[in-house]
Amino acid sequence: MASETRLRVRYAETDKMGVVHHAVYPIWFEAARGDYIRKQGVGYDEIEKMGFMIPLHDLTCTYIKPCVYEEEVIIRTRVVKANAVKVVFSYEIYVEGEDAPRAKGTTTHAWVRTGDFKMVNLKREAPEIYEMLIKCVKEDIPDEI
Amino acid sequence: MASETRLRVRYAETDKMGVVHHAVYPIWFEAARGDYIRKQGVGYDEIEKMGFMIPLHDLTCTYIKPCVYEEEVIIRTRVVKANAVKVVFSYEIYVEGEDAPRAKGTTTHAWVRTGDFKMVNLKREAPEIYEMLIKCVKEDIPDEI
Amino acid sequence: MASETRLRVRYAETDKMGVVHHAVYPIWFEAARGDYIRKQGVGYDEIEKMGFMIPLHDLTCTYIKPCVYEEEVIIRTRVVKANAVKVVFSYEIYVEGEDAPRAKGTTTHAWVRTGDFKMVNLKREAPEIYEMLIKCVKEDIPDEI
Amino acid sequence: MASETRLRVRYAETDKMGVVHHAVYPIWFEAARGDYIRKQGVGYDEIEKMGFMIPLHDLTCTYIKPCVYEEEVIIRTRVVKANAVKVVFSYEIYVEGEDAPRAKGTTTHAWVRTGDFKMVNLKREAPEIYEMLIKCVKEDIPDEI
Repeated sequence: MASETRLRVRYAETDKMGVVHHAVYPIWFEAARGDYIRKQGVGYDEIEKMGFMIPLHDLTCTYIKPCVYEEEVIIRTRVVKANAVKVVFSYEIYVEGEDAPRAKGTTTHAWVRTGDFKMVNLKREAPEIYEMLIKCVKEDIPDEI
Repeated sequence: MASETRLRVRYAETDKMGVVHHAVYPIWFEAARGDYIRKQGVGYDEIEKMGFMIPLHDLTCTYIKPCVYEEEVIIRTRVVKANAVKVVFSYEIYVEGEDAPRAKGTTTHAWVRTGDFKMVNLKREAPEIYEMLIKCVKEDIPDEI
Repeated sequence: MASETRLRVRYAETDKMGVVHHAVYPIWFEAARGDYIRKQGVGYDEIEKMGFMIPLHDLTCTYIKPCVYEEEVIIRTRVVKANAVKVVFSYEIYVEGEDAPRAKGTTTHAWVRTGDFKMVNLKREAPEIYEMLIKCVKEDIPDEI
Repeated sequence: MASETRLRVRYAETDKMGVVHHAVYPIWFEAARGDYIRKQGVGYDEIEKMGFMIPLHDLTCTYIKPCVYEEEVIIRTRVVKANAVKVVFSYEIYVEGEDAPRAKGTTTHAWVRTGDFKMVNLKREAPEIYEMLIKCVKEDIPDEI
């Protein structure tokens, strides 16, 4: 049930090692996360306009095999945890036709108010988004429920 | 009289060609421009807090010889034009001990209001910043006055 | 006859002004250029493997109206000049349904050898790529021929 | 005994949230790591010329309080683990005068050969660099030895 996002590796994303620079993967994660949220019917830009943001609290990334210029990568995104105050996404980066991921990672986010970055209880302040995320977790990791 | 800013080339700034990626130079120009403005006694962050911004209208960059990882580059910044509605900066990137620049460029900016991006007449709305910039032009390119 | 490339604005591409940072546009130009070349039947990665690169000699960009997060932008790319030693691309960035471009620019490239960056005469050393580019100019800017 | 590296926050490093984008911190870690290595008497560029690279295997980053434009950040870097095949760096990002870090993280690297990315036993193939790193661990985390 994971969402899939496809991106073509940009030249600017490579470094002198000849492969994609490691700081690019969090940017791909973010693009995939935005795509995931949009597919639920509400853009992250709209969530910000509603007054909420999800800055990162934690990032992890494991690099397995480098991606190279011109490759088309597929990012599989899941919501693996969601509660009233935080949400955790996981990501796996694949190249078509390969079984092993090139990289994988997680991002942990806190719900805060735009403007003052004060933490908010999403269940209370935006129950419809809260419910949407709970539903995502159930669909994305059904075995763990 | 040009301002000088020193930066060390970052690994992330290189690409698979083995040299600094061309989109990095505008970022160096911007860092040097911020440094230039700060040296006049007011940070660009403070100018934004006063309600003004200088988004780019035009950018030019000429690449002469690539910069490489670990090099320390020197950016020489000048204000080459300033009037009530716009300001033009020029930049030259050098490496210590070399006569020829590695790259050079210009950025043309319009003065706008933060929030709505409406153009403003700086001479009228912030005469002290306007005067500061006129003084910069006189010092930076005295031969042309 | 221009090639069109579609990209979704990434959060990481915005800056504290709330819009796309100006140094992102050259990266979009590059992504569109790679797309353009790939559509001619040969990837730029393959051209590099043949032993040729096209580092930038000049970049220009004019910013007309800022792009914002989540917008899908369309980059129209043309080859406006090509000869044995250089090639010039032009780009216009649109948002669906708008007549005026948000930004436009050009990149001028020299043909060099991978490894030593020595300039090469493409017409002599890779006539098939040279002919491909001449054909591109004829199709992209027929009025000027 | 940790190495300290100072960087000024660039405008391009911010995003529409008004603070430094989370993907910038790994780039700062890398700049600080290069600085750390250079202070040991050998640049990372020289290590690459010797035929060795340290691509990332793992990255972690915890974001505590956002950094903003124009702030001067201090990155404290340590080598917390080193053996024949890998090296682990830790980083803490501070702003002058503050006790709590704004962010902290780790990067785990494998030693590989340039060109084919084959893993190498550093102790055998470059004992002088291996010894240098072991010495770093002893100085950086003396309590744990």
